[in-house]
Amino acid sequence: MTTRGDNLIVEPVARLIEELGKLPGIGPKTASRLTFFLLRAEDDQARALAEAIRAMKEQVTLCVRCFNITVGELCPICTSTSRDPSKICVVEEPLDVLAIERTGAYRGLYHVLHGHIAPLEGIYREDLKIDQLLARVRGEPVDEVILATNPNTEGEATAFLLLKDLAPLGVRVTRPARGLPTGGDLEWADPDTLGSALEGRREL
Amino acid sequence: MTTRGDNLIVEPVARLIEELGKLPGIGPKTASRLTFFLLRAEDDQARALAEAIRAMKEQVTLCVRCFNITVGELCPICTSTSRDPSKICVVEEPLDVLAIERTGAYRGLYHVLHGHIAPLEGIYREDLKIDQLLARVRGEPVDEVILATNPNTEGEATAFLLLKDLAPLGVRVTRPARGLPTGGDLEWADPDTLGSALEGRREL
Repeated sequence: MTTRGDNLIVEPVARLIEELGKLPGIGPKTASRLTFFLLRAEDDQARALAEAIRAMKEQVTLCVRCFNITVGELCPICTSTSRDPSKICVVEEPLDVLAIERTGAYRGLYHVLHGHIAPLEGIYREDLKIDQLLARVRGEPVDEVILATNPNTEGEATAFLLLKDLAPLGVRVTRPARGLPTGGDLEWADPDTLGSALEGRREL
Repeated sequence: MTTRGDNLIVEPVARLIEELGKLPGIGPKTASRLTFFLLRAEDDQARALAEAIRAMKEQVTLCVRCFNITVGELCPICTSTSRDPSKICVVEEPLDVLAIERTGAYRGLYHVLHGHIAPLEGIYREDLKIDQLLARVRGEPVDEVILATNPNTEGEATAFLLLKDLAPLGVRVTRPARGLPTGGDLEWADPDTLGSALEGRREL
């Protein structure tokens, strides 16, 4: 999109607007608002942001065991002595680890796949950390693998594929319950969620 | 806001989330979404963003004449030979220059105040480029000053103050018309806008 006047935006400003516009959910208007904010901001603030981006890319790596993000070799969860090594919770992304940790309901280990199977997007089995998961199940004292991939089509397909791979290894494979969200309204639940909730009903 | 699990966010990631969260309109959720996007992004993309921030802060300065943003001494508008130097359009921010340039309706010069009078926010006359404007009106062949500060309380107050300063200099002082926005709906116009539109009605 080039409109009259855009040639007046000096190159370093145009470049920052362009780079910010590549971020997800940041359109051209937001990108220029942020750019002009940074232009007015203290040098220190802008430098701290640039430095934080650089430092994160340089220092943050993936845990060699569970592929969660970390600095150094192993992540804080893998090095913790208070976690139960007999359980591995498989998630799609590092943010999912944080979501589960915030519940306080899980004390086992994790394994981050870094995506889900999506052949149409060009994401295949070998793009995910699946072989590494199978190696862990074979080599570590695991008795349960919780497949906490997202409750959507791709997540279900990924979980189904993992189930096939894990079945011969003699490990218990589970999946978090589907049902009505807490605080939700039965009237507004989609048919699939309500169906899952009825199917998974429990004795009181 | 600290919740369970947040201590698992490694320092460089937490720092970037914090720095991004200082940007206007970027809350903690968006900041972590952007951080995890950058974590997955190619090193080149993240480096380009960090570098664009640094370069902009280092290279971009204010035009010594009109205080629009530029690289070097004078801005592209002040150096252009095709602009009419007898008109100065006074705006609050550099983004306002772009907005006016996009209309294609103005071929004069600009003067950027870098704010508006707002004593309650601690922004006084001397914080704006007002004396520099008066010096230009005295020294340059100006016959019209267009006060294009924002059509809100602060912008009006700033325009009123400028009018008092400019009056003794014998220059024509104008303000863009107030009225109904193009494409707007009369039914939804606020009383003030509709009042201005009626007051400023023109013979057809």
